[in-house]
Amino acid sequence: MNVNRIKNVLNKAQGIDALLISDPIAIYYICGKKVEPGERFLGLLLKRETKPVLFLNILFPMEETEGLQIAKYADGDDLCELLSRYIRKDEVLGVDKTLQARFLLPMQRYGLAKEYVDGSLPVDLSRSIKEEGELELLRKSSLINDAAMAEFKKLIHEGVSEKEVAEQIPAIYKKLGAQDFSFGAIVAFGKNTADPHHMPDDTIVKEGDAVLFDVGCIYNGYCSDMTRTFFYKHGPNEEQKKIYDLVRKANEEAEASIKAGVRLCDIDKVARDIITEGGYGKYFTHRLGHFIGIEVHEYGDVSAAFKDPVQEHNVFSIEPGIYDPETLGCRIEDLVIVTKDGCEVMNHYPHDIEIID
Amino acid sequence: MNVNRIKNVLNKAQGIDALLISDPIAIYYICGKKVEPGERFLGLLLKRETKPVLFLNILFPMEETEGLQIAKYADGDDLCELLSRYIRKDEVLGVDKTLQARFLLPMQRYGLAKEYVDGSLPVDLSRSIKEEGELELLRKSSLINDAAMAEFKKLIHEGVSEKEVAEQIPAIYKKLGAQDFSFGAIVAFGKNTADPHHMPDDTIVKEGDAVLFDVGCIYNGYCSDMTRTFFYKHGPNEEQKKIYDLVRKANEEAEASIKAGVRLCDIDKVARDIITEGGYGKYFTHRLGHFIGIEVHEYGDVSAAFKDPVQEHNVFSIEPGIYDPETLGCRIEDLVIVTKDGCEVMNHYPHDIEIID
Repeated sequence: MNVNRIKNVLNKAQGIDALLISDPIAIYYICGKKVEPGERFLGLLLKRETKPVLFLNILFPMEETEGLQIAKYADGDDLCELLSRYIRKDEVLGVDKTLQARFLLPMQRYGLAKEYVDGSLPVDLSRSIKEEGELELLRKSSLINDAAMAEFKKLIHEGVSEKEVAEQIPAIYKKLGAQDFSFGAIVAFGKNTADPHHMPDDTIVKEGDAVLFDVGCIYNGYCSDMTRTFFYKHGPNEEQKKIYDLVRKANEEAEASIKAGVRLCDIDKVARDIITEGGYGKYFTHRLGHFIGIEVHEYGDVSAAFKDPVQEHNVFSIEPGIYDPETLGCRIEDLVIVTKDGCEVMNHYPHDIEIID
Repeated sequence: MNVNRIKNVLNKAQGIDALLISDPIAIYYICGKKVEPGERFLGLLLKRETKPVLFLNILFPMEETEGLQIAKYADGDDLCELLSRYIRKDEVLGVDKTLQARFLLPMQRYGLAKEYVDGSLPVDLSRSIKEEGELELLRKSSLINDAAMAEFKKLIHEGVSEKEVAEQIPAIYKKLGAQDFSFGAIVAFGKNTADPHHMPDDTIVKEGDAVLFDVGCIYNGYCSDMTRTFFYKHGPNEEQKKIYDLVRKANEEAEASIKAGVRLCDIDKVARDIITEGGYGKYFTHRLGHFIGIEVHEYGDVSAAFKDPVQEHNVFSIEPGIYDPETLGCRIEDLVIVTKDGCEVMNHYPHDIEIID
C-alpha cells in the first residue's frame, strides 16, 4: 500500500465521495498488487474515512496486506450487493473511465450511488508527477534504450528485412538488463518511414534508404521510448537533409522551451511552428508527445488540446516528425523530465545525421 | 456488410430500439471493417428502419461501402450531439458490455436515450452459430493445429526449456499456413503441468516429465485451440496413468454426449461426474469448455452456469483437466462443431498416451 499515493489521489478527487478504481494498472500503482482479472470484476475503493477495500474474485489468491481490506466474491455472487456494503446510496461515486458497461449498468440499476462520475483524473494526475524512485527507474530504462539503439543499428546490413531486424530486438533488450519491450518496435525502411505507425514487414533495406527505429523497453516496471532516423549506405539528399534538420530543430527547441509552469500546448507550438514555417506543417500529423511511466502512454499529451502547465517531475516524450510520402518520414524522439528551471533529457543517443555502412 | 448477420442480430435484439456496437471485433463480424480505434470512439449503430451507421474518427481512413453510412467526427467534436442525430431520446439503447464509462457516462448525461441496456447478447448469440464458410475456416485452422502438434512434439529433447520450445511455435504455424497464433502457447513440463495457465519459463525437461502443449493458431481470421499431454522418455506411473485415463474418458464421453438440444451444463456434468467419481473432482478447477471463432474465447461456456441447449453449428472446446500438484497436470482438449445428431470433432490428433523419446 502506498499511503502517499492514496493521499494524493483523494486530495485531487474533489466532489467525489467514493472512488472505485478498476484499471489493473492504476490499482497496481496504488497498492502494489498485480492482478489480471480478465473478464471478472476487480476494484479498489478509496474513501477518505475508511481503509481501502479491494474487491477480488476468489480465483485470484492474495496474501493479507497491512492497510488493505480484501472483499472476496465468487462467480455468481451479487457484486452490487457486496459493493453496497461499502458505498452509500447518497454518495457520489467516481468510476474509472475504462469501467465497462457490463459493470456500470448493473450498478446504476441497483442504485448503488447517487451519481456516477468519471473518477480517473485524480489517479492520472497523481501518476503524472513521478516520485524520486520512479525517476530513477525511468532514467535507467532510457539508458538501456540508448545502449540498445547502438545495437539495433548494427542489425542493418545488405538483404535484411524490417521483420528480421525487429525479431532480434527483444533479445537485445534482455541482454542489456531490461525485462521486456514496452511496445512492438517500429522498424521502417525507405518509403515505409512515412507511415508513423508502420508495422515491420518483409521490406528489404536498400542503399539510400532512411532507417527509422521507434523502440522502448521496460525496466523494473518503467517504460522507455525513443526514435532515431538513420540513413543506409549514403547520406540524405538535399530535401531529406532539410527535413531532418527541421525535425531536429523542432525537437531541440521544444526541449529547450520546457520548464515547470510552461503550458503543454505551448511546447507543442514551439515544434509545430518550426515545422510549419519550414513548409512541412501538413506532414506533422500527430501530437508532439505523450506522458509515460508504468505505461508507455499515460494520461497527458503535449498537444494543442492540453492547456495545463507542466509540473516538476512530469515525464513525457518530445517526438516531432515529418511524414512526406514522396521524400522521407523522419522522427526524433526523446523522453524528458520536467524540472524547476528546465528539463532533463533522459536519452543521450545523439541527434546527428548518421550513416549506417 | 453482412446483411444476414445484421438481420440475425436485430431479430435477437428484442426490446432494443437502437443497438450501438463498439467492440471492434463485433463490428468486424458485422460489416467486415477492421478498425483499431485505440482510445477513440468507434461505434456501429443498427436500427430496424434505417441503414447501419458507423461512427468513425477521421484519423481512420475508410472507403465508401454499399449499405453503410459513415458518420465521421474529429477529436474535440461533440460526439453525443453527433450520436443524437441518429438515436432518439425516447429509444431504448443497447450498448456493448465493453463500452467504457468515459463514453457511457457522457451519453447518459446528455440524455441520448430513454434507457441504456446491455446489448451484447444479440451479437454474441449470432456469432455463436457459425455459417458454412466460417466452419470451413475453423476446420482448416484445427487441421493446421493437428499438424503443428506433431511438429511441436519433435522440439522436445535433452536440455531444452519450455521457453525455447515456445519460441519456435510461431514459425511452425506460419510454415504450415497459419497467419498467427491465437494465444500465447502453454508449454509445461513436470510439476508445471499442474498450473492450468502456466507461462513457459526456463524449466528444463526431465526424464519422466509430463509435457503439456495448449496451443492454437489463426487461419484467415479463425482460431484453433487444442491441448495434448505427453510423457518424456518413459511412460506414466500408475497414478499418472489413472489420471490420464480419467481425463481421456471425460473428454470422449463428453464429446459423445453432444448433440443439438443438449444443455451446456449437462455436457459439463458428463465430464465432471467422471472425474469426480474417479476421486479427482477437486482438481478439475475450470469450466469444461468455451466457445471459439474469430476470438479464441467467445461468448458461451460449457459449464454449470450455462443452462442453454446447444444449437447446430455452435463451436466450442471440450477440455477436461486434472491438476494434482503432487502427481501431474493433464488436459486433453478438442474443438467440436455441434450437429443435429452429434458433433464433429475438428481435432484428429490422437488421445492415446504417447511417449516422446
